[in-house]
Amino acid sequence: MTKQWTHRVTRAGRLGVLLAGLGSISTTLIAGVEAIKKNLGRPIGSLALLGALDFGNGNDADYAYLRDCLDLASLDNLVFGGWDIFPRDCHAAARHAAVLRPALLDKLAPQLSAIRPWPGIWDQRSKNRPEGVSCKTGRTLRELVDEVKTDILRFQDANRLNHSIVLWCGSTETFLEPSEAHQSIDAFEAAMGQNNYNVIAPSMIYAYAALSLGLPFVNATPSRTLDIPALVQLAQASGSPTAGKDLKTGQTLLKTILAPGLRDRMLGLEGWFSTNILGNGDGETLDDPAAFRTKQESKLAVLKSMLRPDLYPELYGSFHHDVKINYYPPAGDNKESWDAIDIFGWLDYPMSIRVDFLCRDSILAAPLLLDLSLFMDLAKRASLSGPQEWLSFYFKSPMIANGGSPEHELSVQFTNLNRELRRLAPAPRRTPAKAG
Amino acid sequence: MTKQWTHRVTRAGRLGVLLAGLGSISTTLIAGVEAIKKNLGRPIGSLALLGALDFGNGNDADYAYLRDCLDLASLDNLVFGGWDIFPRDCHAAARHAAVLRPALLDKLAPQLSAIRPWPGIWDQRSKNRPEGVSCKTGRTLRELVDEVKTDILRFQDANRLNHSIVLWCGSTETFLEPSEAHQSIDAFEAAMGQNNYNVIAPSMIYAYAALSLGLPFVNATPSRTLDIPALVQLAQASGSPTAGKDLKTGQTLLKTILAPGLRDRMLGLEGWFSTNILGNGDGETLDDPAAFRTKQESKLAVLKSMLRPDLYPELYGSFHHDVKINYYPPAGDNKESWDAIDIFGWLDYPMSIRVDFLCRDSILAAPLLLDLSLFMDLAKRASLSGPQEWLSFYFKSPMIANGGSPEHELSVQFTNLNRELRRLAPAPRRTPAKAG
Amino acid sequence: MTKQWTHRVTRAGRLGVLLAGLGSISTTLIAGVEAIKKNLGRPIGSLALLGALDFGNGNDADYAYLRDCLDLASLDNLVFGGWDIFPRDCHAAARHAAVLRPALLDKLAPQLSAIRPWPGIWDQRSKNRPEGVSCKTGRTLRELVDEVKTDILRFQDANRLNHSIVLWCGSTETFLEPSEAHQSIDAFEAAMGQNNYNVIAPSMIYAYAALSLGLPFVNATPSRTLDIPALVQLAQASGSPTAGKDLKTGQTLLKTILAPGLRDRMLGLEGWFSTNILGNGDGETLDDPAAFRTKQESKLAVLKSMLRPDLYPELYGSFHHDVKINYYPPAGDNKESWDAIDIFGWLDYPMSIRVDFLCRDSILAAPLLLDLSLFMDLAKRASLSGPQEWLSFYFKSPMIANGGSPEHELSVQFTNLNRELRRLAPAPRRTPAKAG
Amino acid sequence: MTKQWTHRVTRAGRLGVLLAGLGSISTTLIAGVEAIKKNLGRPIGSLALLGALDFGNGNDADYAYLRDCLDLASLDNLVFGGWDIFPRDCHAAARHAAVLRPALLDKLAPQLSAIRPWPGIWDQRSKNRPEGVSCKTGRTLRELVDEVKTDILRFQDANRLNHSIVLWCGSTETFLEPSEAHQSIDAFEAAMGQNNYNVIAPSMIYAYAALSLGLPFVNATPSRTLDIPALVQLAQASGSPTAGKDLKTGQTLLKTILAPGLRDRMLGLEGWFSTNILGNGDGETLDDPAAFRTKQESKLAVLKSMLRPDLYPELYGSFHHDVKINYYPPAGDNKESWDAIDIFGWLDYPMSIRVDFLCRDSILAAPLLLDLSLFMDLAKRASLSGPQEWLSFYFKSPMIANGGSPEHELSVQFTNLNRELRRLAPAPRRTPAKAG
Repeated sequence: MTKQWTHRVTRAGRLGVLLAGLGSISTTLIAGVEAIKKNLGRPIGSLALLGALDFGNGNDADYAYLRDCLDLASLDNLVFGGWDIFPRDCHAAARHAAVLRPALLDKLAPQLSAIRPWPGIWDQRSKNRPEGVSCKTGRTLRELVDEVKTDILRFQDANRLNHSIVLWCGSTETFLEPSEAHQSIDAFEAAMGQNNYNVIAPSMIYAYAALSLGLPFVNATPSRTLDIPALVQLAQASGSPTAGKDLKTGQTLLKTILAPGLRDRMLGLEGWFSTNILGNGDGETLDDPAAFRTKQESKLAVLKSMLRPDLYPELYGSFHHDVKINYYPPAGDNKESWDAIDIFGWLDYPMSIRVDFLCRDSILAAPLLLDLSLFMDLAKRASLSGPQEWLSFYFKSPMIANGGSPEHELSVQFTNLNRELRRLAPAPRRTPAKAG
Repeated sequence: MTKQWTHRVTRAGRLGVLLAGLGSISTTLIAGVEAIKKNLGRPIGSLALLGALDFGNGNDADYAYLRDCLDLASLDNLVFGGWDIFPRDCHAAARHAAVLRPALLDKLAPQLSAIRPWPGIWDQRSKNRPEGVSCKTGRTLRELVDEVKTDILRFQDANRLNHSIVLWCGSTETFLEPSEAHQSIDAFEAAMGQNNYNVIAPSMIYAYAALSLGLPFVNATPSRTLDIPALVQLAQASGSPTAGKDLKTGQTLLKTILAPGLRDRMLGLEGWFSTNILGNGDGETLDDPAAFRTKQESKLAVLKSMLRPDLYPELYGSFHHDVKINYYPPAGDNKESWDAIDIFGWLDYPMSIRVDFLCRDSILAAPLLLDLSLFMDLAKRASLSGPQEWLSFYFKSPMIANGGSPEHELSVQFTNLNRELRRLAPAPRRTPAKAG
Repeated sequence: MTKQWTHRVTRAGRLGVLLAGLGSISTTLIAGVEAIKKNLGRPIGSLALLGALDFGNGNDADYAYLRDCLDLASLDNLVFGGWDIFPRDCHAAARHAAVLRPALLDKLAPQLSAIRPWPGIWDQRSKNRPEGVSCKTGRTLRELVDEVKTDILRFQDANRLNHSIVLWCGSTETFLEPSEAHQSIDAFEAAMGQNNYNVIAPSMIYAYAALSLGLPFVNATPSRTLDIPALVQLAQASGSPTAGKDLKTGQTLLKTILAPGLRDRMLGLEGWFSTNILGNGDGETLDDPAAFRTKQESKLAVLKSMLRPDLYPELYGSFHHDVKINYYPPAGDNKESWDAIDIFGWLDYPMSIRVDFLCRDSILAAPLLLDLSLFMDLAKRASLSGPQEWLSFYFKSPMIANGGSPEHELSVQFTNLNRELRRLAPAPRRTPAKAG
Repeated sequence: MTKQWTHRVTRAGRLGVLLAGLGSISTTLIAGVEAIKKNLGRPIGSLALLGALDFGNGNDADYAYLRDCLDLASLDNLVFGGWDIFPRDCHAAARHAAVLRPALLDKLAPQLSAIRPWPGIWDQRSKNRPEGVSCKTGRTLRELVDEVKTDILRFQDANRLNHSIVLWCGSTETFLEPSEAHQSIDAFEAAMGQNNYNVIAPSMIYAYAALSLGLPFVNATPSRTLDIPALVQLAQASGSPTAGKDLKTGQTLLKTILAPGLRDRMLGLEGWFSTNILGNGDGETLDDPAAFRTKQESKLAVLKSMLRPDLYPELYGSFHHDVKINYYPPAGDNKESWDAIDIFGWLDYPMSIRVDFLCRDSILAAPLLLDLSLFMDLAKRASLSGPQEWLSFYFKSPMIANGGSPEHELSVQFTNLNRELRRLAPAPRRTPAKAG
């Protein structure tokens, strides 16, 4: 197989990783990277740091580690910054998140304490603004955009960065009804001129600012942020790659692993009942029905898309699917999902699968954020722009370029991701993979 | 994409399906096919009857159902026969197996009662031969082979069959130590001449007879039957396709679905503990440590092969894997597996998955036997011979042609199966898939 | 130990068992009793028919079966009747409930078809009255009461009954706010005179009618029916025993078994999260938040009452308890509960229990209804009246006589039940228990 | 209720707690007590320290905490010592056991390091004596007994102890066949004179020594230690209370909570399959079939004893019960049990319960050892001797005095324990229980 050499990729350099929202996931990412740099931890879960690509011809495998064959920013070249409405520094925020052991965080205190968030953007649709929050003071949407841009540019200067990426990691926002103002960049900017806070959510302000500067933007949450033609247009016009939405971590991850296997075996599905119990801020937010609706949308579409009731009506024409999310404080940052999966086989005989997944939300999400930072920076340097479908692997609701329906099946997403990474690898790649 | 037209495939016709061992799985297959023909049941689980192939170009899917685009034997053209050491007819055997509802079996009594097994082959290594068994009387291994051949040829004549296939579905045989006699067809035939029952198990006698006649042969069980160079040589010499071993049904099926997903996400594995409780004859047999050893071999290799500790030593270099099988009569033909999967993520934080799979062994296995019968017949008509790797999808320990290691990952097996089926489809295929 | 002989008990005779609501539970009871009488089934779950009492002195056990030592109505002397707003007969209703196998129901068709419900009482608070329902025509509450009484009296005459008992088995009613009208029998009758449908639910009409006639009344559901001083007064005044509420079947049954054990071992509780999925009418009703509130009230009080946070604040002072009920049609009449129980031990180290209970609601409830019919009839013949606390064993929210808090712990309830049964046993009892 | 005043109890004082075997359980007990004394942890799981007794008259509860109404040794008066074949001190042993967090253990280093075990007794039946073990040098059984006695007496002197108790906490010993030598104290001493190591296990040497000195002795393990008439006689003759065997912690604890509830409800049992996975030394030992046989015996008798197939043959006449213990290193000191419980109800309809219990062996066991130390010391001071049946609550295989069968049901054991404790409470007791 001759390796096609499609992209000219500029060299990796110092990369600013700007996190809008310094909560559990962001702080677990930052603290983790610092720990790994000091040999206090391992980057388990990161494909970029641990994975291997097969450059073989299909018959004979020929593996190289991604770290050896792709020009990705090194951990030493990552510089973290961010925004939050809580003014605590990254060490305090990580202690508050209570994901990582205090003993570890304390060893990283000098690095973490130095990261202080800029003021965040308050969602005008929310009512009760708590005491002591630290919010931007811009009185118009345009002023808020400008403040965000200024934060980014100053940070780039101060840290002599070659590249930056912005990732939206805030709380799930209240569901945003579709609006005319979202249909084009002109309409969007008009709504901005009218300070229409009902159609422009905080996450969109970050996205608009980042994309205007030509920066890659990732939506790690279920909020609709990038799901509007206006921002897709802006991304393409400004040459900014985008990716989202909603990091695929616990239960949905399992669904996109399990369901395709059942389908390949032509086993019918009678029902799939999913319950989640979680105790972190995410769970508390989702007690709010409006925020939950945003999340629910992400979750329910997945099964139908993979099982294809249109092709297999006898098998998947009438299954019952439900997803519940419950706030249960004893779970802490852990997230436990319980799935009752009722299937049927030969002559309709029923069988069942029960899965109890005791996972850790931020532990699963942090390496995904790291991979996305490195791969989106690579995409930018390869002059890719707009929705990066090959990164669907990381999301519950993958963005796709032109209509069509997203790919949810994990193994297919993984194949697509690898194909693109091989395209982005300079030839000749360096070393065959051989475990150290 | 231009469809490559590799194989000339002769026309499908009346197909003899000869089952060595009329136990739970065989009778569930036969009764199921009869029920489906009478509209008393649906062939859930059969890819051949329900599946669709994508002939699209990668961007646009273009599905056709296998039943429309492949020339497979129709259910009306299947004629069932078989061997067993218990002389009861197929209706009595199905009642005894207690997999399907008696009410259904009784509706099929005329068809099922007509199927009476020929005498089976007694394993000389076993001690306690029960009363009333019906065994072949041949005093030498050669005589036994000849009896099997005669059974087959008479059956073909009597039923005016165009093609036949033999499937080994007997109890798991006592573990057979590797021997010189297995290394070539000459050595094997010499051992046969010496009536060496310690190196030639009953299943090998069926295989030798079938392959000698150029018939496709499937090993549905964990016995070593075809795992010897002698019979591989014979298959290739006689133009007989072979496939095996050990139908992939419950827990291993789940493993080959789940484990690749965890690996693609670069999640580490600390341990995987698998327990099975089952109440059918299979469970009872496996209480015998020698038979269990045969089974255990099939099961333990799977995880390592998929997880690649050689490539990913930090993740999979030292996981603990154990598989237990317990005889538990209350389970009946149901099989319950419980898996404790202990994984670790970012900074080595532990997480866990617990899976309880309440499945039905014969219900899962019967459609696999049907698919294998139809696909192996197709392979024979396409002049394929020796191990059919593209059928790995169906087996716990897939046979492969020349050394190398088998593919265990379900989604890869499925892709390979589809690729071969597309090659075997005549062009132009008939109808785009559209659910009725 | 000398057996104290407290009660004069009149002789058992023909007993009318009148079920208000011919749904899943009632039909499973009736069909089950008919099946048992014909030797087509066994009364598993019935203490009255299978249980044994220990008359020993504490050191040496001396068991006698309840059926031998208590004068209970025999199954042959039970005569079933009932009310329902759906006019189908008991055979049709049982087929509709889909709890028992159709083949069994069909064998009982003559007995079951003969049981046709009288018209039921429509809840005026409900909006959408479906087509074809069969409701009483009384235009005032008093007229409705009179119709119920007439039904009962005619039934007693027609069947030459010595005794009758009425059991409320209807759907969970909309939560009824406490009201002045419930505080005394006078206020209640005044409200009845004013046709105040907002304070008098249908189940109260049945209760009022039954108690007025001096009949025992059981509330098998979570509705508030008997939880009002007015009806307690009436029961005592008319010499009618009462019992309720909410049959203790699945998850709560397990809680009242498990939690006392954890408490006896002084293990702390951090949280107990309970999810239920059920597919029968009960589940559908509980999708209605007003009905669910009624049910929720029954369920949440149980744990605190048993764990005594007042006595053990370090262990139970701040546990998180939640109960969810989800309608999931694939479950059918089966009910699956999943409990996540997070406990802590020595030095606060956490541990956890996960329980998946696949139960059958009506199968668990039917023998409780049978026991209650037989024991309440016994209570009536022993001149007991008002709340029968010794029957707490059967209920999620046991009624108690004078304030105080109910006993929830299953083993204590069982001890209390046995003590009372021993008191009600005539001396000398007949035969020592010896398995048949 | 007048409180019967049966026992004269001498005053509590300084109590030596001598642990034969300084493994996971012993070190978790000692470190826990030290932590509690320093307010670094709470004695969760200890009835003696947290529990309350009801002195009410049955109608009105009247609770007093055990710590207020019983004269138990205070934690400050406990002095720990012990034996082990590994010469490491208690801090090192606790680090090795890896049950408690190293950070906690290090805070207790001064107290723990000071506890150094005396040399242990090597089991002559074992073959491979590892390097570096520290064993008693006595060449005869009598010499070994004398060494143990000397250890105890010197320890008592050195620490000015008023009382001592010896607890056997070693690894499960190889199954010991019953022997004539066990039938009387004379025969036993004769076997000792003949140095018959095949009938006298190490644990019996500790027991013989302790009982000879009149000290209370507890067998915390499944070994047969005290199950022989010889040592029962000795205990009674020397006025020593005894208790055992096999601390009831994980799965068996759950069984003795759950099974009585199912029985009280007259639910039938078809099968109960129990699997355990554990990674500590206990698990490793039990891979040895001879040791497992000892353990298995403890476990299987429990269900039958509680379910009474003799009384309820229709329900419990033919259930299948199996218990498996698997060594699974990833579990560490955690122990996970999975129970598949198949029950049946009304008309034999099947239902099932699945319980996954993630427990911690030593965390559950340590407070039991503490309670036993305090209660056995109390028993000794109250002049009780021989098997203390009222302590059955703590054991999988409770010792009983004269034939008969032990009580397994947790709630009954708890009632019996409380009854005896009330008898042992001086009147008038001090303070009504009122949470802090």
